[in-house]
Amino acid sequence: MAEIRIVLVEPSHPGNIGAVARAMMNMSLRSLVLVRPRQFPHPEASARASGAEAVLASARVVGSVEEAVAGCGFIAATTSRERDQYFRVLDAREAAGRIVAESQHAPAAILFGAERTGLTNEELEPSHVLVRIPADGEYASLNLAMAVQIIAYELFLAQSGQTGERPVGTEVPGTATVPRTTPLATSQEMERLYAHLAEVMEEVGFRDRTQSGTNLMGRIRRFLQRAELDENEANILRGLLTAVQQRRRMAGQPPRDSDASSGDASPDA
Amino acid sequence: MAEIRIVLVEPSHPGNIGAVARAMMNMSLRSLVLVRPRQFPHPEASARASGAEAVLASARVVGSVEEAVAGCGFIAATTSRERDQYFRVLDAREAAGRIVAESQHAPAAILFGAERTGLTNEELEPSHVLVRIPADGEYASLNLAMAVQIIAYELFLAQSGQTGERPVGTEVPGTATVPRTTPLATSQEMERLYAHLAEVMEEVGFRDRTQSGTNLMGRIRRFLQRAELDENEANILRGLLTAVQQRRRMAGQPPRDSDASSGDASPDA
Repeated sequence: MAEIRIVLVEPSHPGNIGAVARAMMNMSLRSLVLVRPRQFPHPEASARASGAEAVLASARVVGSVEEAVAGCGFIAATTSRERDQYFRVLDAREAAGRIVAESQHAPAAILFGAERTGLTNEELEPSHVLVRIPADGEYASLNLAMAVQIIAYELFLAQSGQTGERPVGTEVPGTATVPRTTPLATSQEMERLYAHLAEVMEEVGFRDRTQSGTNLMGRIRRFLQRAELDENEANILRGLLTAVQQRRRMAGQPPRDSDASSGDASPDA
Repeated sequence: MAEIRIVLVEPSHPGNIGAVARAMMNMSLRSLVLVRPRQFPHPEASARASGAEAVLASARVVGSVEEAVAGCGFIAATTSRERDQYFRVLDAREAAGRIVAESQHAPAAILFGAERTGLTNEELEPSHVLVRIPADGEYASLNLAMAVQIIAYELFLAQSGQTGERPVGTEVPGTATVPRTTPLATSQEMERLYAHLAEVMEEVGFRDRTQSGTNLMGRIRRFLQRAELDENEANILRGLLTAVQQRRRMAGQPPRDSDASSGDASPDA
């Protein structure tokens, strides 16, 4: 796989290094480079890595940004300030798309500065672009590991080709990404359900109680369509309708309409 | 501005609560609710909040998820497992679009479970959708505050209209493409509806017809949550249930249970 390097310049807190490792591993990033870390290795880093020790173990410690980005093609530097008008500034999502595309050709790197001070102008020098993480206008003070997490997340989406809105494995946005075990109820099954429901509504006189011209059946159809019922779920509703009819008839009410539509309805049929 | 509640259920580590406050404030979110936090307030929370103490100071501590989401319309629950095929599952970006759109009408909430265990099935109950944060297939173990950071970032983008091509509110087919004119039924209203439905199911003996251990009520709850009923729609169903009960009683069947729950149910109330 293409290499995307996360470069932390002079990180002060070993806990942040561990949290960065965890953030990276969650998003399938493995290549961590530390430029003059204040304390590393450190138990606090390992504790916060929480299962991502492999990233820490393979982290490279170097003495300069130049060493960190040696062999890299595209280089991006994160900044919370838009201080240098001569750099191109991309937001996190655009930058992730560029980095992933460029990493197909040569290792790419993203630089993150020290917790309090960020990157110096000199440390920015090798970068092609600055990356800005969109944030609150008045309080923009992302923790280092949080900034890495957001960039790593955007890189993961870009890697998986998910920069469009649609999650992988679904044809319709917003529907379950879990494989469906029971087929959706067909439109015929849904029509039989609605016919059955209309029959019960008629029997219990629900239609008569309509106020102010609300199309009750139309409303119910809409929200049941939104629920995207599978076959079992449609059958559960048919079963409930049948139970309502049977108990009413047992109670001495004569059947009104044909019984045909309710014969085949039972839950989990 | 519209209210979007971040709800942490039984957070174990006060440091995470502080980091969540900081993550939120960076992304212009202010409403934090803690359900049975193990330790709060706590110096570690304040230390990690780092300038976002205002979010901690205004955090509400409550005893249950039910209290946490009281008054909310749209409710989403984060999960790392895709364990419940009957929920609609959205990825973080889609979910953020929905949440922002829905928060225009009523407060919206996003639930995050305890660090080690996540949300229980019972804690998921009031939710309309599950939210999945895309992550590595083999190592998906996001820290709680990191998960909040990613969701908060996506909410911030959605608020600023930076989600990309698709306009807010069109992510789920069949929902919210038209501006909502009626608020979503609250979780309390939905619970009253389920209680009323359980009563009718008992009266018509539907429970007895269960085969092979299917949890009928659980299945019905799931698909009605997916339907995302608004207040009128919930009232239409309540009205239908009342009509079923009244006709059965007129037919000579003695009432079984208390009548209290059906008194206020009429369509379009």
